[in-house]
Amino acid sequence: MRLLVINPNTSASVTEKIAAVARSAAAPGTELEFVTAPYGVPYIATRAEAIIGGRVVLEILAERAAEFDAAIVAAFGDPGLGAARELFSLPVVGLAEAAMLLACPLGRKFSIVSFSSRLEPWYRECVEWQGLSGRLASIRMLDATVADVGRIQAENEDLLVALANAAVEEDGAEVVILAGAPLAGLASRVTERVPVPLIESVSASVKLAEALVALRPRKPLTGSYRQSAAKPATGLPDALTRLIETGQASTIR
Amino acid sequence: MRLLVINPNTSASVTEKIAAVARSAAAPGTELEFVTAPYGVPYIATRAEAIIGGRVVLEILAERAAEFDAAIVAAFGDPGLGAARELFSLPVVGLAEAAMLLACPLGRKFSIVSFSSRLEPWYRECVEWQGLSGRLASIRMLDATVADVGRIQAENEDLLVALANAAVEEDGAEVVILAGAPLAGLASRVTERVPVPLIESVSASVKLAEALVALRPRKPLTGSYRQSAAKPATGLPDALTRLIETGQASTIR
Amino acid sequence: MRLLVINPNTSASVTEKIAAVARSAAAPGTELEFVTAPYGVPYIATRAEAIIGGRVVLEILAERAAEFDAAIVAAFGDPGLGAARELFSLPVVGLAEAAMLLACPLGRKFSIVSFSSRLEPWYRECVEWQGLSGRLASIRMLDATVADVGRIQAENEDLLVALANAAVEEDGAEVVILAGAPLAGLASRVTERVPVPLIESVSASVKLAEALVALRPRKPLTGSYRQSAAKPATGLPDALTRLIETGQASTIR
Amino acid sequence: MRLLVINPNTSASVTEKIAAVARSAAAPGTELEFVTAPYGVPYIATRAEAIIGGRVVLEILAERAAEFDAAIVAAFGDPGLGAARELFSLPVVGLAEAAMLLACPLGRKFSIVSFSSRLEPWYRECVEWQGLSGRLASIRMLDATVADVGRIQAENEDLLVALANAAVEEDGAEVVILAGAPLAGLASRVTERVPVPLIESVSASVKLAEALVALRPRKPLTGSYRQSAAKPATGLPDALTRLIETGQASTIR
Amino acid sequence: MRLLVINPNTSASVTEKIAAVARSAAAPGTELEFVTAPYGVPYIATRAEAIIGGRVVLEILAERAAEFDAAIVAAFGDPGLGAARELFSLPVVGLAEAAMLLACPLGRKFSIVSFSSRLEPWYRECVEWQGLSGRLASIRMLDATVADVGRIQAENEDLLVALANAAVEEDGAEVVILAGAPLAGLASRVTERVPVPLIESVSASVKLAEALVALRPRKPLTGSYRQSAAKPATGLPDALTRLIETGQASTIR
Amino acid sequence: MRLLVINPNTSASVTEKIAAVARSAAAPGTELEFVTAPYGVPYIATRAEAIIGGRVVLEILAERAAEFDAAIVAAFGDPGLGAARELFSLPVVGLAEAAMLLACPLGRKFSIVSFSSRLEPWYRECVEWQGLSGRLASIRMLDATVADVGRIQAENEDLLVALANAAVEEDGAEVVILAGAPLAGLASRVTERVPVPLIESVSASVKLAEALVALRPRKPLTGSYRQSAAKPATGLPDALTRLIETGQASTIR
Repeated sequence: MRLLVINPNTSASVTEKIAAVARSAAAPGTELEFVTAPYGVPYIATRAEAIIGGRVVLEILAERAAEFDAAIVAAFGDPGLGAARELFSLPVVGLAEAAMLLACPLGRKFSIVSFSSRLEPWYRECVEWQGLSGRLASIRMLDATVADVGRIQAENEDLLVALANAAVEEDGAEVVILAGAPLAGLASRVTERVPVPLIESVSASVKLAEALVALRPRKPLTGSYRQSAAKPATGLPDALTRLIETGQASTIR
Repeated sequence: MRLLVINPNTSASVTEKIAAVARSAAAPGTELEFVTAPYGVPYIATRAEAIIGGRVVLEILAERAAEFDAAIVAAFGDPGLGAARELFSLPVVGLAEAAMLLACPLGRKFSIVSFSSRLEPWYRECVEWQGLSGRLASIRMLDATVADVGRIQAENEDLLVALANAAVEEDGAEVVILAGAPLAGLASRVTERVPVPLIESVSASVKLAEALVALRPRKPLTGSYRQSAAKPATGLPDALTRLIETGQASTIR
Repeated sequence: MRLLVINPNTSASVTEKIAAVARSAAAPGTELEFVTAPYGVPYIATRAEAIIGGRVVLEILAERAAEFDAAIVAAFGDPGLGAARELFSLPVVGLAEAAMLLACPLGRKFSIVSFSSRLEPWYRECVEWQGLSGRLASIRMLDATVADVGRIQAENEDLLVALANAAVEEDGAEVVILAGAPLAGLASRVTERVPVPLIESVSASVKLAEALVALRPRKPLTGSYRQSAAKPATGLPDALTRLIETGQASTIR
Repeated sequence: MRLLVINPNTSASVTEKIAAVARSAAAPGTELEFVTAPYGVPYIATRAEAIIGGRVVLEILAERAAEFDAAIVAAFGDPGLGAARELFSLPVVGLAEAAMLLACPLGRKFSIVSFSSRLEPWYRECVEWQGLSGRLASIRMLDATVADVGRIQAENEDLLVALANAAVEEDGAEVVILAGAPLAGLASRVTERVPVPLIESVSASVKLAEALVALRPRKPLTGSYRQSAAKPATGLPDALTRLIETGQASTIR
Repeated sequence: MRLLVINPNTSASVTEKIAAVARSAAAPGTELEFVTAPYGVPYIATRAEAIIGGRVVLEILAERAAEFDAAIVAAFGDPGLGAARELFSLPVVGLAEAAMLLACPLGRKFSIVSFSSRLEPWYRECVEWQGLSGRLASIRMLDATVADVGRIQAENEDLLVALANAAVEEDGAEVVILAGAPLAGLASRVTERVPVPLIESVSASVKLAEALVALRPRKPLTGSYRQSAAKPATGLPDALTRLIETGQASTIR
Repeated sequence: MRLLVINPNTSASVTEKIAAVARSAAAPGTELEFVTAPYGVPYIATRAEAIIGGRVVLEILAERAAEFDAAIVAAFGDPGLGAARELFSLPVVGLAEAAMLLACPLGRKFSIVSFSSRLEPWYRECVEWQGLSGRLASIRMLDATVADVGRIQAENEDLLVALANAAVEEDGAEVVILAGAPLAGLASRVTERVPVPLIESVSASVKLAEALVALRPRKPLTGSYRQSAAKPATGLPDALTRLIETGQASTIR
């Protein structure tokens, strides 16, 4: 099984963190390839940046989707996730989606903990889009200064653990998601310091992608994830133009 | 008052339709300027196309926002609407949002009628994002072949009226939105053929924009529509890069 | 365009405040007329008083609706609003409704701030009736002693600003509604003291009424706002009796 | 125990129907007194008529509440119910409320069946106000011509039974409410013709009122049903004026 | 009228408390019989214990239902309630259900106060199952050590009153439910110490059962509470086996 | 990794079907063991039967949990699932839960298709408990006579495919769950006959269990799935008694 992991941020240091955690989560037969966004911002935090990052995801998939069994959008917030499902026929999962779905069997309510309050509205809309607001206990965010997104985790470990514990004690969280690629790997180090299960979003996305590939779902011919009818496109990258103009979901499946 | 009306589609014939209706809806002191998307697709119908069109909206506003008092995203579905509110400080409204908000005082439940079933999922997510699902009676769509989006309205008038009446009789609609720029102007011609108020979305957006400008709202310094902190940007158009790198909402306000 | 502004309270000093703000909000061609409730209480604050005030609204409209293009129920809480839409064919808007609908494009969540905790349950039911509970961040109320409703605003400016700021900081409000006719005009004076947009409900109602008149909505022949069938009426004022007994929505439209 | 049953409609023939059914439902020690609205309409069917009928309820209670242990608002739709709870300290129940609450233990979803589609929007808002929309299967209505509201039941028995069965078969109703005073007594005659429990709303209101009296609930001193502070009142009937001006909930309790 | 009150806990001291309160709440003609669980735990507090207690309820009813007009599941949380309604044709009510339904007419929001935080998740799921989450202000729990469940009430009276008052002041409760059989009788002693109505759940269940019996509801032949088709059963108590194997709801009704 | 698959039904033919499908879905390193309910009914279809089956699940786990890494409750409807999570510390998943969670990334709305309308209410409550009603398009059920639950699938293949297609065309399903152990294996045979992805619930549960084990979640020390405090137990099987009396979650983890 081949999985394409797309970091829609431009920060290569975050891609490395993702890669380390994803590799250790992957099952024996799973091969992983990692791509970093060629343009955009180092860390997506707003709706505006999610539009930019969402288009990056579509461009990368337009070039590479045919070589893989599934793809992962490796930013919590899942930019371009629904769009990718329309244009392509391989399963595509997002970090936020995977973390939330795998949190559900472990507790009645989950909290999302991350490192910047600027992310909170975007994350909340992501929970709403999934229809999981009823399972959300809270979103709690550090107000860390993000000088170097690659070092956030190391510099804020105690604060993040304190936030997770506050979510449990004050908000009723029964499971806590440590959200976002920059926090990849933290969960395993602090498991004993929080009294409920922790979900690490990169690992969750790898396991969810593997599970979906095993189920061999077909590309829908109807509904909101079907491919659009062919239509003209102007001024877009070649691979994306080809997809839109042929109306063909490009894939090996 | 100066309003910028952005057609995020590449179809100039649709921009003309928008312009004719918007001009007739505008109050005496309102000046309107219209821009057509320089790249993308002739008619946005999917989440993928909305990401492309959303970025077009941001690029156009990055160039032009400072000259205007408010802007209108002239595609039902409102691509880039939330994103634009983050980056810019002038009021920005969308066709879907305006139509739905002005429908509320006219009936307890509204239906949305338009010309392609491919639009339905995107429209539905737009209603959900507005938190107005409780006011939605139904979305009813033609399955018109969209050979020339500029002629949809003329060729399907009777079918669209029949859909509106079905929404009233079978779904309990108390007001009907004729959705999308290609249907601009239809409402006034068929008012007598449907027993409840009709909302035309381009007119609604002009009136809502005028109303908001009159209230002189300030740019928020906090919350989800505040400008992001300055951060590096790579490979984006100059004006957009400048905005992101300075973290300044560009505007005359 | 002629708008009838009905103060369903008996306090003429509040009508004056409404008039001052409404006039400054109105567009050039808009003529305004103001009526104060001939009976009832100086300031409606409960469901019981809203029934009394709601009937006042119906009685005044039964006498005067035919002379106007639209009407405004100038009490936050909107007594008699749905009822007026059944009996009359001109657009009728309420202060609460207008403020909430125009708040939506300015922030994801709004808070309502006003001067008496006695109003809170009635306001909350009003938000629920509009189907906008999902957009409500909070309702925050002073416990001002309402000796003279005309002086509440002047005497409590700092406290009201503090409440608005608390709504932003603690409840996540992205826009704040200063609610009720007694607070008319306050928003423009304190804009700089609150970091998110403020909505003043009288101005909002004038702009919403103007927008609706411009859209020329028809009187519905079906649905919940249609006129009732003619039926006998006993012991009611003449104009109201005539309306009910003929089953005719009285209006110039 | 003494119960006051208020018919907010002017139709004495309906009051008789109510009385017959209420008497047969009452427990041995329960004394009932019946009052018909002195003004208004023969059968309340709209929000406008509910405002008129709601004020009738307040006026009658202002005169009589002190003589009773509880009161029943004997129109499905419950005009004035919340208002009465503010002004008075005896328990007050409505036909719609009682029928819905007693339906809940008998089936997961209830349908409401009645005789005029004009009632549907008002009933629906009543369900929403109770927070019971999640338990509602459907509202199904005859389009009977209401020449004589006292004879509706006899003339439409088969049609009403057919509606109830349609609610069961097509909408998933597990219990059916035969709604409104004019249908009082029908349920017991047609029990065998519908395969799920039927709730008759007048009987339900008597049993709910008896249950509440037995629980001896205190008048709340806080919350939305507390009495308002004393305030001036103009132009209202004496008893109502006295209540509002003293701010005293009038009652023997 | 004969009511069977089933304590699904094994604690006879709790059954005595239930009996004392139930007898004083019952109407003159109501005969009560009380049964204590022959196996299980002294006080059900979790989903696991509710499954055990739910089966106890079914076993007792399989033996005794035919002798009674209605049954009460006398544990707040209502173990086995839905199941009992499928297998038997007499009305069955639960403490939680009765308390919540009778709280509704007394306040817009209720809080549930009880003695152990371990109960909170189970109670919350019970509120959700009833579809009444919109009416719930809060659940507030002591962390009493439950050495002897029969003495909880006496030892914690002041703490429970303080919790009820906190629910009123901080959570907006307009009525407070003192939940669970071990608190039976407390409400009447502390009425004056809480400014809103108190609901005692055992009394509520007796009044609700009496009300339902008076309405003479039929056993549903369709819907989720209908009896299942006959099917084989292995290894279950005789009476229960007989019921399942015949598919006959066992009852005098 | 060792998974215990518990069939809470007494039908060994269904266990065989489960085993065949589970084995083909399992990853290379996954060992599976299957247990059939020693008492109860051949196919659980009601809340009453789910209580019986839920206790079976707890009894089997009390004996065997310590030998496994995770457990699967192999009946759609997930009897005893929440209870098992309290008493044991290994991950436990249910067929319904797994199918719904893995359906979410494949379509915006899922439908559940199965073989008996008697199952529908129980399944619906299961969806509600998961907080996923917003993702549910419909539940569609055959009314097959269940003479031999092991042959349902073979005898009704065309009818089940027709139901799935109806869910897609009429209810807007974007993914269809073929629900219940008796339908295990059907999905792979009919993939090409339905235009959207199909989810087979046994396979889904194996993949979800494997994913959760890989995430190594800790047993919660707080929240609704924590172990209860030790308490006395009477009349229960030994292993279950031991668990309850020690308050120790029995597990190798």
